[in-house]
Amino acid sequence: MIKVSVLGFGNVAHHLIGAFAKSDAIEIVQIYSRKKENASSLFDPEKITNDIGTLADADIYILAVSDSAIANLSAQLPFKNRLVVHTSGSVALDDLHDDNRKGVFYPLQTFSKNKTVDFSEIPICIEAQFAADYQLLEQLARAISEKTVAINTSQRKALHVAAVFVNNFTNHLYAIGSDICEENQVSFEILKPLIKETAEKVMTLTPEAAQTGPAKRIDSSTIETHLDFLSDTNQKKIYEILTQSIIEHGKKL
Amino acid sequence: MIKVSVLGFGNVAHHLIGAFAKSDAIEIVQIYSRKKENASSLFDPEKITNDIGTLADADIYILAVSDSAIANLSAQLPFKNRLVVHTSGSVALDDLHDDNRKGVFYPLQTFSKNKTVDFSEIPICIEAQFAADYQLLEQLARAISEKTVAINTSQRKALHVAAVFVNNFTNHLYAIGSDICEENQVSFEILKPLIKETAEKVMTLTPEAAQTGPAKRIDSSTIETHLDFLSDTNQKKIYEILTQSIIEHGKKL
Repeated sequence: MIKVSVLGFGNVAHHLIGAFAKSDAIEIVQIYSRKKENASSLFDPEKITNDIGTLADADIYILAVSDSAIANLSAQLPFKNRLVVHTSGSVALDDLHDDNRKGVFYPLQTFSKNKTVDFSEIPICIEAQFAADYQLLEQLARAISEKTVAINTSQRKALHVAAVFVNNFTNHLYAIGSDICEENQVSFEILKPLIKETAEKVMTLTPEAAQTGPAKRIDSSTIETHLDFLSDTNQKKIYEILTQSIIEHGKKL
Repeated sequence: MIKVSVLGFGNVAHHLIGAFAKSDAIEIVQIYSRKKENASSLFDPEKITNDIGTLADADIYILAVSDSAIANLSAQLPFKNRLVVHTSGSVALDDLHDDNRKGVFYPLQTFSKNKTVDFSEIPICIEAQFAADYQLLEQLARAISEKTVAINTSQRKALHVAAVFVNNFTNHLYAIGSDICEENQVSFEILKPLIKETAEKVMTLTPEAAQTGPAKRIDSSTIETHLDFLSDTNQKKIYEILTQSIIEHGKKL
């Protein structure tokens, strides 16, 4: 059994605890939450603490807190030379305090409170200061996911930026699509099969091979019609810049 | 049996013919292709013509050609008062020639040559000049799809623009994600579960509820880090404009 304590109780912590609880290979020793009541409904109240001084022995301490809180929290830990990892895409391994052995356990996925996710499909990106710790983190990752991958701090930073493009920005394009539908009395439901297929396509084709549409064809007449149609200056600006980017990208191929 | 002739042999025609061929309710009378050899490998050569003068009787003539060719082709048809429809998201019903009864049969999906699609999931957007024709097009749509929807020319235009955002532009964001991975020696494979989940999420949540990330949190420090990381001016510009748009969008909620 790998003994794990989770510090924090936001979206990532919430989903990680759920996945750990399902595995026979993992024992959740303790959850630290500054506001004790946040965590209490989901977990044995005896194992929850809001007093960092009472942290019990564990093999791995997972800091699943906001990026800006990681360095501070790691400096407050009341022990030395234990394995302490964070779960962030953008914080460096070195930002953890030197008192303990450092690691990263970054599940590359988008977590929302009201949406369950299948952890077995989520790539867990691992980094560690020491080889033995890396192996332990890999064991932990394999207990909840089929995909574990060694990713160093600079690769993780790139992945995180790329994730912002394919997740945050993509979702915002869905929001714009939804706005356009609403403004024109069309149901957003009609777009859902297209959204699904757009994602499905790049599972087997490269994004370049999957690209279709007026920008790809450099179909200026349709592009003009669309720009005339859009009255929102922000939507128009996004349309122009992404159309131009698709055209430029096509020239490089 | 609904007797259908398809004019054109691009991606849309190709996929439509495949779907029609599977249905017992539809008979494909003829395929018109300017370049006869395009069509010949997939279909009984006797039923293919490159001579518009030899078009046989059918209940519906489907012009599955490029937007700019629709008006011209509809003007060249050697008959009158038959049902002629196009398959375009952006061409008006009225752009079809007055000699025949007009309709639109627009499958809202992205079609690529090397990727099969499940037609039963594709919304077919229908418009017709006359009620009886509408009913026939609905029958045709139901023979290949579970989702048929009445969409007029101006709604269809809105849908098409929205589709550009959720498909063309989204796919381009995948391309940028892939570029960033490549430049930093990380496999694009790692992002695929995230891409899938991003699409999955909006099947049940609104895009607003599904939105996560530094722009949503107005996490300026991460946004700055990401902008510093991006060296490509085009990627940087897209990052800035979409981040700003997410922040503004959040204020409106």
